[in-house]
Amino acid sequence: MVTIDHLGIAVKNLATAKRLYEQLGLKVVSEETVEHEKVKVAMIPVGESRVELLEATSEDSPVGRFIAKRGEGIHHIAMHVPNLSEAIEELKKTGTRFISDEIKVGAGGHLYVFVHPSSAGGVLLELCQDQPTPA
Amino acid sequence: MVTIDHLGIAVKNLATAKRLYEQLGLKVVSEETVEHEKVKVAMIPVGESRVELLEATSEDSPVGRFIAKRGEGIHHIAMHVPNLSEAIEELKKTGTRFISDEIKVGAGGHLYVFVHPSSAGGVLLELCQDQPTPA
Repeated sequence: MVTIDHLGIAVKNLATAKRLYEQLGLKVVSEETVEHEKVKVAMIPVGESRVELLEATSEDSPVGRFIAKRGEGIHHIAMHVPNLSEAIEELKKTGTRFISDEIKVGAGGHLYVFVHPSSAGGVLLELCQDQPTPA
Repeated sequence: MVTIDHLGIAVKNLATAKRLYEQLGLKVVSEETVEHEKVKVAMIPVGESRVELLEATSEDSPVGRFIAKRGEGIHHIAMHVPNLSEAIEELKKTGTRFISDEIKVGAGGHLYVFVHPSSAGGVLLELCQDQPTPA
């Protein structure tokens, strides 16, 4: 089943940004720095999905450049798909563009790719799949 | 429980935009024109949430002006809250700004307000509540 895995929101300051979600009764369950992306991430479960607040630790980083160019706001939407390879194959039939053709491995071993905004109504759309359970 | 009710995505053409979601196995369950907002809306359930694709029927409309200014992309995020009045009261304690102070009644009788992006990390955040069941 396809679900919204998370919404990535680029913010200037995690402490300020997370307050609104806490006031709505939501909880930050983890805060960590992802060194190679130069970003601090606060994870907030929302139903079956999550909000990921993203604060750049350097202006020279994907989130830092996003904020310099567009200001705070939604950076990407991530959708969970049952089979990532099949989804990519299907989308390529109609010429869908991807940020990179390579499936990457993220935190916890999940697999992901990004569809280019030009192919997804201006949205940076991440497609992700849980790591297959080891046999 | 707080959940992501829907993601509103401003697009130039519904027919083009919905194709990607259909390729992911999702289905457009309704398409309708909301005359007073000058917008055509395609609703696509995604798990417990929905994607709402929004195509302006006039350049002089909220979605038309958004696209002229920023291009296609995410227009707003809507979160479902159990008690809208309580949520507003809580947020106002810390000076959260709203687009309008008035709770509005939308399609199907649901209640909603919009938090101003300046108070929500650059996100136009809709808070909504189902219509209370009549006694």
